[in-house]
Amino acid sequence: MPTPPRHPDGAAPARASRRRFLAGAAGLAASAAGGGAAQADPNNLPPNVPAWTRALGDGAGVRPYGQPSKYEKHVIRRDVPWLTATRESSVSFTPLHELDGIITPNGLAFERHHGGIAEIDPADYRLMLHGMVDRPLIFTLADLKRFPRVNKIYFLECAANSGMEWRGAQLNGCQFTHGMVHCVQYTGVPLRTLLDEAGVKPGAKWILAEGADAAAMTRSLPLAKALDDCLVAYRMNGEMLRPEQGYPARLVVPGFEGNMWVKWLRRLKVGDAPWAAREETAKYTDLLADGRARRHTFVMDAKSVITSPSPQARVAQKGLLVISGLAWSGRGKVARVDVSLDGGRNWRAARIDAPVLDKACVRFYAETAWHGEELFLQSRAIDDSGYVQPTKDALRKIRGVNSIYHNNGIQTWRVAPDGEVENVEVS
Amino acid sequence: MPTPPRHPDGAAPARASRRRFLAGAAGLAASAAGGGAAQADPNNLPPNVPAWTRALGDGAGVRPYGQPSKYEKHVIRRDVPWLTATRESSVSFTPLHELDGIITPNGLAFERHHGGIAEIDPADYRLMLHGMVDRPLIFTLADLKRFPRVNKIYFLECAANSGMEWRGAQLNGCQFTHGMVHCVQYTGVPLRTLLDEAGVKPGAKWILAEGADAAAMTRSLPLAKALDDCLVAYRMNGEMLRPEQGYPARLVVPGFEGNMWVKWLRRLKVGDAPWAAREETAKYTDLLADGRARRHTFVMDAKSVITSPSPQARVAQKGLLVISGLAWSGRGKVARVDVSLDGGRNWRAARIDAPVLDKACVRFYAETAWHGEELFLQSRAIDDSGYVQPTKDALRKIRGVNSIYHNNGIQTWRVAPDGEVENVEVS
Repeated sequence: MPTPPRHPDGAAPARASRRRFLAGAAGLAASAAGGGAAQADPNNLPPNVPAWTRALGDGAGVRPYGQPSKYEKHVIRRDVPWLTATRESSVSFTPLHELDGIITPNGLAFERHHGGIAEIDPADYRLMLHGMVDRPLIFTLADLKRFPRVNKIYFLECAANSGMEWRGAQLNGCQFTHGMVHCVQYTGVPLRTLLDEAGVKPGAKWILAEGADAAAMTRSLPLAKALDDCLVAYRMNGEMLRPEQGYPARLVVPGFEGNMWVKWLRRLKVGDAPWAAREETAKYTDLLADGRARRHTFVMDAKSVITSPSPQARVAQKGLLVISGLAWSGRGKVARVDVSLDGGRNWRAARIDAPVLDKACVRFYAETAWHGEELFLQSRAIDDSGYVQPTKDALRKIRGVNSIYHNNGIQTWRVAPDGEVENVEVS
Repeated sequence: MPTPPRHPDGAAPARASRRRFLAGAAGLAASAAGGGAAQADPNNLPPNVPAWTRALGDGAGVRPYGQPSKYEKHVIRRDVPWLTATRESSVSFTPLHELDGIITPNGLAFERHHGGIAEIDPADYRLMLHGMVDRPLIFTLADLKRFPRVNKIYFLECAANSGMEWRGAQLNGCQFTHGMVHCVQYTGVPLRTLLDEAGVKPGAKWILAEGADAAAMTRSLPLAKALDDCLVAYRMNGEMLRPEQGYPARLVVPGFEGNMWVKWLRRLKVGDAPWAAREETAKYTDLLADGRARRHTFVMDAKSVITSPSPQARVAQKGLLVISGLAWSGRGKVARVDVSLDGGRNWRAARIDAPVLDKACVRFYAETAWHGEELFLQSRAIDDSGYVQPTKDALRKIRGVNSIYHNNGIQTWRVAPDGEVENVEVS
């Protein structure tokens, strides 16, 4: 045991916090001195004075809008060309394996579009609110900014996230299996405020939301949800929405599937029944084994994924291993996350990192030691409604394998003795 | 009053939520139809189908690392060339007036450097921990990533933020008067964990932190603070630190002045007394009127600023006006923010937007109606220690005007009848 540190006032800190994690000084020194990854002359590395301390750094003026380090060029959104990339319709995936915490940087937040990315001059932006209302209204962006606003951190997940996993483990990396999710802080007007401004007529039960993109993405939304927690948002992580996220304004529908968060929001129509638009009939319904289809499957059920280690983030070294991942639930807060090292036979509760927010991603960790044994890593989210993330097989038993939507099954990563990680299934 | 909206279950929502904010349908329709800002042919705007709905948007592949809209090019960090811009030493300011919520996007987070921006290959990164410890250690970046980690949202404020305001209102915009603050989510290892790994010797009371940049920024930090809540952080807002923020690792010293958050962190030395380094003697001490200097003024006291309206964000229109700003305290949580429209004669409590986190920025709002009258806008933060943000004059009475540091006085913006806003003082 190390000598207990002393506070300035002489009191020893609580003993429980004084465990040592790594193998000790020798192990660390060896790692530092003999690290195969080091590229500079060791004489130039600490404890010696490195080259970058001996010369003035880049000081050529302010960078008006900063960018990541040139050593982070691999941290990018990626697509799967054979899966979706056409000029009309595309999807990019968040590099979950390269991120930590709960906030997704705007430049790395996945995006899916069905008709290209609309480019809208904010001066020309209009939002029409009509239908079963007392006063049909058209809002400019400046109008929206004059209403009282709120800021909320929410996850957004595409209904098709993990869709390829219905038919077995296919894509080797959580960026591809689970990367259609992101979590940012939105700034916007509660939709309820706009509806109150227009005056909703008795008998109204649904709202149609329509995008201004070429696909005119159109979805029906229950009025109760609109009055509850939806926003018309124009900012993400403080700055204005990115073009691919619906600049200058989008719908935020907390906990509901991503395509209902209509981007480039152009029109809201209040009615008494759903509209049966293309994207809620031919698409975004879940075809079951018997040929019937589930529809209006709005809520994204509790789900989690281990982001590191994962196929794109192998285990580099024996010894202490931090297992880390994300969990979320469209029903509310994540109450617990369990982690298994042996494919679901034994579970332990993961450490959940604060803050735990309603309908937002939470970050979880499980620290362990790895000595080269084969692992089958799994995580399982439980939300505050009591819902437990199911196995893929349990989901298939009920829903079949026809659908590409709403797969929130437990994911398995196999860690091989050499530290490589692959997407597998266990039963 | 509008007709009360009905929930699908027939129950009317709470009456209190049904107030209308804007002038009504007529006013809005006029604003939409006659808005001088509109640039497109009105026939192309909603309710008609706009051009961007009739043509396919930009779909030429995925953007690996996304950027803001071309219409947001004015949202940038700025410098004040006559103030600081040399090749050796520079500072850029966060565009607070263009942001909302509490998260600062990484590309817009202010930065100050004293010897240029060091460029460090993460494979060559080393952190040395030595001095009064049982086991001197050198950590690689991979070593740091193997320790249990946490994620925390904290504000970082430069000690010299608002420094020019000691001698009166000078810079016309909150970007320049208050823009040396940002707030992001950090991922890192508790410094306590590293100290426990090394084993702190009895009698130790201070830590020296040294940067690997050409300035070798060096500060003394009380051991009690190091053991409390400091982090060695390598990520901000999920992705790796930006180069100008200390890539690949920096110190996080919650609530303490920014230059103690040593960037490009190279060395930590444990000792029994402060080191009296240049940046805590010749600089970053507060020269008083009588020639004595306050030193070790670590904690950033409670402070707030109205970010909109402000000199760079004028009032565009009469009617509903959202007053918005940021507040923070190095002592803990912000408990309350008051807003005055008349230069501090009358105060009302602002609405504080959740979440309220320890040593993080909070966003506050005060909604009002403006009819062209002259306003003297002020905000005043109160933290959970009971500390009340003082007036500038109260500060000057105690501290004189020799210092450029630790000015947390109440800021005043004058709103003129034409909506222009300027930095003024009232007494």
